Amino acid sequence: MPAMLELTLRCSVCGTESADPTQKTCAACGPWGILEVHRPLAKPTEGPGVGIRRFLPLLPVPEHLALPAPPVGDTPLVEAPRLAFQLGLDRLRLKDDGRNPSGSLKDRASWVGAVLANGRTAACASTGNAASSLAAMCAALGTQAVIFVPERAPAPKVAQLQVFGATVFRVRGSYDQAYDLCAQAIERFGWYDRNASVNPMLVEGKKTCGLELGEAEAADWVAVSVGDGCTIAGIWKGLQEMYRLGVLERLPRLLGVQSERSPAVFNEWQSGGDQGPARAPNAAVADTLADSISVGVPRNWRRAVTAVRESGGEMVLVSDDEIDAAMRDCARLGGVYGEPAGVTAVAGLRKAWPGGSAIAVVTGSGLKDVVGAQRAGGEPIDVPPELGAVEAHFAG
Amino acid sequence: MPAMLELTLRCSVCGTESADPTQKTCAACGPWGILEVHRPLAKPTEGPGVGIRRFLPLLPVPEHLALPAPPVGDTPLVEAPRLAFQLGLDRLRLKDDGRNPSGSLKDRASWVGAVLANGRTAACASTGNAASSLAAMCAALGTQAVIFVPERAPAPKVAQLQVFGATVFRVRGSYDQAYDLCAQAIERFGWYDRNASVNPMLVEGKKTCGLELGEAEAADWVAVSVGDGCTIAGIWKGLQEMYRLGVLERLPRLLGVQSERSPAVFNEWQSGGDQGPARAPNAAVADTLADSISVGVPRNWRRAVTAVRESGGEMVLVSDDEIDAAMRDCARLGGVYGEPAGVTAVAGLRKAWPGGSAIAVVTGSGLKDVVGAQRAGGEPIDVPPELGAVEAHFAG
Repeated sequence: MPAMLELTLRCSVCGTESADPTQKTCAACGPWGILEVHRPLAKPTEGPGVGIRRFLPLLPVPEHLALPAPPVGDTPLVEAPRLAFQLGLDRLRLKDDGRNPSGSLKDRASWVGAVLANGRTAACASTGNAASSLAAMCAALGTQAVIFVPERAPAPKVAQLQVFGATVFRVRGSYDQAYDLCAQAIERFGWYDRNASVNPMLVEGKKTCGLELGEAEAADWVAVSVGDGCTIAGIWKGLQEMYRLGVLERLPRLLGVQSERSPAVFNEWQSGGDQGPARAPNAAVADTLADSISVGVPRNWRRAVTAVRESGGEMVLVSDDEIDAAMRDCARLGGVYGEPAGVTAVAGLRKAWPGGSAIAVVTGSGLKDVVGAQRAGGEPIDVPPELGAVEAHFAG
Repeated sequence: MPAMLELTLRCSVCGTESADPTQKTCAACGPWGILEVHRPLAKPTEGPGVGIRRFLPLLPVPEHLALPAPPVGDTPLVEAPRLAFQLGLDRLRLKDDGRNPSGSLKDRASWVGAVLANGRTAACASTGNAASSLAAMCAALGTQAVIFVPERAPAPKVAQLQVFGATVFRVRGSYDQAYDLCAQAIERFGWYDRNASVNPMLVEGKKTCGLELGEAEAADWVAVSVGDGCTIAGIWKGLQEMYRLGVLERLPRLLGVQSERSPAVFNEWQSGGDQGPARAPNAAVADTLADSISVGVPRNWRRAVTAVRESGGEMVLVSDDEIDAAMRDCARLGGVYGEPAGVTAVAGLRKAWPGGSAIAVVTGSGLKDVVGAQRAGGEPIDVPPELGAVEAHFAG
């Protein structure tokens, strides 16, 4: 019989420990008492190239479980000197997580979730990327995924789920309604819960992005888009672990970037309170075009705010127009094609203008959001098949 | 002054050599006299991880030119045992070239083209993937791309060009009309010609896919989708070079796969003639849903046919329905999400049923063709935000 993993779950609010790996939130602190995984630190045994499986010693994943074949992670860190110049930075690198198997950073969390489901059906509610990554990882393992998406999920993201063979429920309602329905169904059917916001194992997958950044040369800032808050919290945990392992020489400051139209985590950060956004449920409407970070009631607001504070960092809000501009800048000056939520970190760097060196995490591929790309890119020049029409364009 | 590269261009029909690196087709043989690059062989100096720049000693690219920062190539070779079983193969690996920077194998050719343009405007006509890859590589280098696309190019592919800042002419006509207009404009304005079919330098970029396959364990078959014919010709050249360098122990047989609705290269292969498809221009209508391989008059038919023959291989035709099924199988059983033209090689393996071991080259990401994904995937299950609706689905 394989040895059990040595891990502890600890409440991120009161610090109470639990040894039950299926527990989700702290019994004393309620829904905001998100649990965090604590494991003894150990350096990865392999170098880059095989994906995040090389971080197994740092993950809550036993080595004897089946792992998906398509490599997740080891995404490029792209030097972007022209974009750095435009943003007033000495140096800028773009972590292109759109080059994961299903096209987003969420593959890192879904990799852990699909593996830990261990043959059971896995379910999640998602505006798209968490869903498509779970569908991809379950397909790779030959297991079943059930996905709940809100009405506004972009068609390409839904199509991807269908092609991967997931059972997809499109819920007539908001993301939060899809989330609640998913939670009920998980309870009712006993499925594995791949909702990163409440499953502490999954943020360990997101952590691998921070572990990879921790292997690269240190930067003054790491900019990350923020929706629910668990991505920036996971990246911070990975950076900290690499720092504690002596691999990363100094920790960066975090720049957390939210959309003006989905500012719940930013509001908590700015107010300095510790009650969380649920105290004003009527203000929880979120409707940014950057759909992946459109979250009205972010369950990990506290971990995100704590991560930004611990790092001595900042949070900023950006508009949808600024996100569109970042999509163009990122592609035209950096050669990296990100979706709107994916380039929000770049928009934040323009807004915050922090100087020094920075890494922006581009969390998803531009191919994931056709409507966003068409909005940011505009229309081509329609011509008949005649040279005169081309000449006229350049003569004008 | 940097040393000139030692290279020769040789006509693929009559063998006449030329030392002029700007020449495109053979003066004696006309448009079918495609030239091939010949260079002294040299092993790559670096291992995987930095992309195709490690193959510089085998490419017609001087080391002193600026290279794009986002790494191209080094795409995963994904083990797909469940898909292998379904296709009657002992072993199947999927070369996932959809994980290139712009989402397709064409990045390999555009990398070479954008670099060799050396600051000049580069132009091409493309149904999408060559175009978006050129737009991406030119953006990464800070140079200008001009693209001619036919009317039927899918919207996500056009949007990608626009976001990357290319000048895009959408031509009211077929791919062949867009191609002819592009050729006229290149002549008129003196742009760099990134049309892989007639620029012998670019197939050297595609060759890098074969070079990478040549570094992996040998397979009995390598299956490749065929449109113009230059991709399979390039991959064959790369495999041959790795074989001649002693890196690859034995050459595979090639399986060239075309769509029933765009069978021009297949027809030449089957007829055994050497006149080329131009003899029957009225038969040159191509209209498969796999738009990337929809080519009425393939300029590299002879090189493709020669490659398949030299390898002792086969060619097969597949229907659009078989391509749709391959898109689902590839995702659901292999965990790899390819666009219709991208999975055509897998459809061909099901049709040809060759046995033994195989590698299928998945040439582009499923995210590139939303319409194709929606057709292959079908619609999700619409429900109100009530558990009863979910229970009803599973009770049924």
